[in-house]
Amino acid sequence: MPENAALPQPLHDALLQLLGPAGLLTATSDIDPFCIDWRALYHGKCAAVLRPANTEECAKAVALCNQHNVPMVPQGGNTSMVGGATPDDTGKAVVISTTRMTRIHDIDHADLTMTVEAGVTLKAAQDAAAKEGLLLPLSISSEGSADIGGILATNAGGNNTVRYGNARELALGLEAVMPDGNVLNLMRKLRKDNTGYALRQLLVGSEGTLGIITQAIIQLQPAPRSRETALCAVADAKSALDLFAAFRKQDPSAIQAFEFMSGTSMALVNKLIEGAPLPLSEPAPAYALVELGSPRGDDSLRSLMEDVLGTALEDGLVTDAVLAESEAQRQSLWMIREEHAEAQKRAGASVKNDVSVPLAAIPTFIDEATKACEALIPGIRVAPFGHIGDGNIHFNLVQPEGADPKAFLAQDHAMMDTVAAIVRKLGGSFSAEHGVGQLKTYMMPEWRGGAELETMRRIKNALDPKNLMNPGKIFPAA
Amino acid sequence: MPENAALPQPLHDALLQLLGPAGLLTATSDIDPFCIDWRALYHGKCAAVLRPANTEECAKAVALCNQHNVPMVPQGGNTSMVGGATPDDTGKAVVISTTRMTRIHDIDHADLTMTVEAGVTLKAAQDAAAKEGLLLPLSISSEGSADIGGILATNAGGNNTVRYGNARELALGLEAVMPDGNVLNLMRKLRKDNTGYALRQLLVGSEGTLGIITQAIIQLQPAPRSRETALCAVADAKSALDLFAAFRKQDPSAIQAFEFMSGTSMALVNKLIEGAPLPLSEPAPAYALVELGSPRGDDSLRSLMEDVLGTALEDGLVTDAVLAESEAQRQSLWMIREEHAEAQKRAGASVKNDVSVPLAAIPTFIDEATKACEALIPGIRVAPFGHIGDGNIHFNLVQPEGADPKAFLAQDHAMMDTVAAIVRKLGGSFSAEHGVGQLKTYMMPEWRGGAELETMRRIKNALDPKNLMNPGKIFPAA
Repeated sequence: MPENAALPQPLHDALLQLLGPAGLLTATSDIDPFCIDWRALYHGKCAAVLRPANTEECAKAVALCNQHNVPMVPQGGNTSMVGGATPDDTGKAVVISTTRMTRIHDIDHADLTMTVEAGVTLKAAQDAAAKEGLLLPLSISSEGSADIGGILATNAGGNNTVRYGNARELALGLEAVMPDGNVLNLMRKLRKDNTGYALRQLLVGSEGTLGIITQAIIQLQPAPRSRETALCAVADAKSALDLFAAFRKQDPSAIQAFEFMSGTSMALVNKLIEGAPLPLSEPAPAYALVELGSPRGDDSLRSLMEDVLGTALEDGLVTDAVLAESEAQRQSLWMIREEHAEAQKRAGASVKNDVSVPLAAIPTFIDEATKACEALIPGIRVAPFGHIGDGNIHFNLVQPEGADPKAFLAQDHAMMDTVAAIVRKLGGSFSAEHGVGQLKTYMMPEWRGGAELETMRRIKNALDPKNLMNPGKIFPAA
Repeated sequence: MPENAALPQPLHDALLQLLGPAGLLTATSDIDPFCIDWRALYHGKCAAVLRPANTEECAKAVALCNQHNVPMVPQGGNTSMVGGATPDDTGKAVVISTTRMTRIHDIDHADLTMTVEAGVTLKAAQDAAAKEGLLLPLSISSEGSADIGGILATNAGGNNTVRYGNARELALGLEAVMPDGNVLNLMRKLRKDNTGYALRQLLVGSEGTLGIITQAIIQLQPAPRSRETALCAVADAKSALDLFAAFRKQDPSAIQAFEFMSGTSMALVNKLIEGAPLPLSEPAPAYALVELGSPRGDDSLRSLMEDVLGTALEDGLVTDAVLAESEAQRQSLWMIREEHAEAQKRAGASVKNDVSVPLAAIPTFIDEATKACEALIPGIRVAPFGHIGDGNIHFNLVQPEGADPKAFLAQDHAMMDTVAAIVRKLGGSFSAEHGVGQLKTYMMPEWRGGAELETMRRIKNALDPKNLMNPGKIFPAA
């Protein structure tokens, strides 16, 4: 059996002529890595991996696949948490990888923009901006692999959303190859342009189901010249939220990040991660990590931090606090925050919930969900943390100490459903950052059903009538 | 002939029962004002004006009209500059007015949001926010009449876009009645929610062609506690842009507005508007009006203004400047800016161009367009001004002194085409703020044709297959 059995010969030949041998992978050993998702939840198959070198090649390849009714799975850095870039197991689809489209075309200091191809990794784009004294204000843990096309297709979030918005807000221009192979060119550097529908915003976050993003114009910021970072002990999530509001009232634009950590989660880090002791005199029920930043060179940011924290300490809103006095201290505070996932992993089996709720509902959410999970599984360690400033809590659940991990994980759906029911009641989202992919399609009818899902379906059908572009993602099987 | 001749009797009776006499206007004298646009460019006809009191009534009314294949023209404050809310002259359509949906449901201090019905005027919404110490950061000259539904349907901009974005960026939640009468409920207070397509962003700016916006959740800001305003004399648009960049480098979030005024336009204001003399020692080729603002209560904003202006004066980037020392002085500086349209009106006939270009292209645009217009009509007064910080220049053209206004206006298309060709070459937009409406549909094929217009058409057709929702807007006749 030839390696490319599933690819019709005329299509194979046309693609080979178009893309060359570097652009068409068909050997099993070559294509296999493209068929497994980052979390290894899915192991799909594909007929070939196409690696176009530019938009024109991509457009022609898509047109050819469309003519032959071959499903296409766009893939960037392959870091989806929800199987969003992994083909199904029929082996009929091709993966279209953006990894060869890695040019940075332009950094524009007048417009503060960067024009990049889809395959540039987020890290490479950040570095290129930094080299010119500018900031690409989006940061996620997979930034070394995740690429611009992928972060836009999934509307990535991260720590700095509270200040700069999600990926959608950063994309000033966009280019995409549509399911029929036509190129949608929205590469305009315009902050005001009311000439028809918001196609750019629609393509961003559509998870590759409406087209393949091939280029973008990303809005940059002047690099911050001052930064202030503090870890604060607080009584509960409500206090953390009140502290956030106190900073926001003074200057929302100074808040670069505002993170929440539960006492339970912090204790796991202090215990299980080397070099990450609690930098405060005693443990607290909860913590907030505050980072202020500004491109201003003056000392107004330090005053802002000290004024707000001073009042909060006086009022008892904050019970203890440590302010980073050097970049090394700043990094060690951030290390504590970033090691939460690793500490939970070391503590045994855990269940993750990537949810968001309105800010006002966060205390109720954490309180109710904690009680419900504790009632469900006695001894469970409820260890929430996350981006409280934009309502996004990683409501993670760690197995009871010494319990059997498998027995714990056997109840994962019960735990997720318990948390989800409370999120839903409070008007929240079952996927704050990660998207729907193939992992969460089953939740769409209940959470986004009725006119909302129907409208999405109609748009999908209008732009991709053969359902060839990333099939099986976002939409539950009919 | 009965007044409501064009409304089928069964539909009339059903609507009357649904909406009551206050919700169904059919007398010519009652409906006529809804059939003329704000600029009086169009005088349409309609069979009736429907004034639903809430979403439920609106949804049922739309479903009834859809069943009877009656076109529907959504209308807010009726302040469109492009005939976007005016019915055609067949008299077959109904106008659906949001003017009775005027409740402000909620101002949420934790989430900094306001939940409002579509018929609340922008001014009423601003006032309600201000009463609670908050800022609704969108301001346009028609805000006393324009309503929330209208500003979202048209993605309104204004002076503060440079800091807070257009209306689309302010809408955190949305509710709309779709063309079939189904209610699309996207009223979620979530900053992170990756669960399917960006329908909210798509509805915003769709100019009533995809549905009727009935409610929204608007993001608010803490009210600024300090403000600094300065009028600066500069050599040209390039210098104004360099000054903008100097402020932006220090703190983009402090820039509340950054306006450009040409020397020609300023001279008209100084000459023709009472109480608006030039507050500088001598006229300059161009001016920038800078407003900084911050919710911080300290004096860091004053230092920022003085530092940047001081350096700019030293470097010769700014040749003269006046800083407002009181609220009265601030208002008189803004009055000068706001009287530009009135001064141009008093100077005779004028032609308006609501265009935008990339920031880097502004100097070239103004230079080339000025020369081209002066070549076209000797003696023409080229009087551009506008929101230079977001690339949006009102490139207005005033008739030669003493010339015949009619003869001048007879050449309006030649002037507009001349300007448009340069905007197009520079990657700009033919409608920065006002939208397409019915006035500019003819420009769509050339400017947004190919895959872009085709994608818009497919979406329109998928969501409104009978083409009943605001027909004749955005899309040119097929």
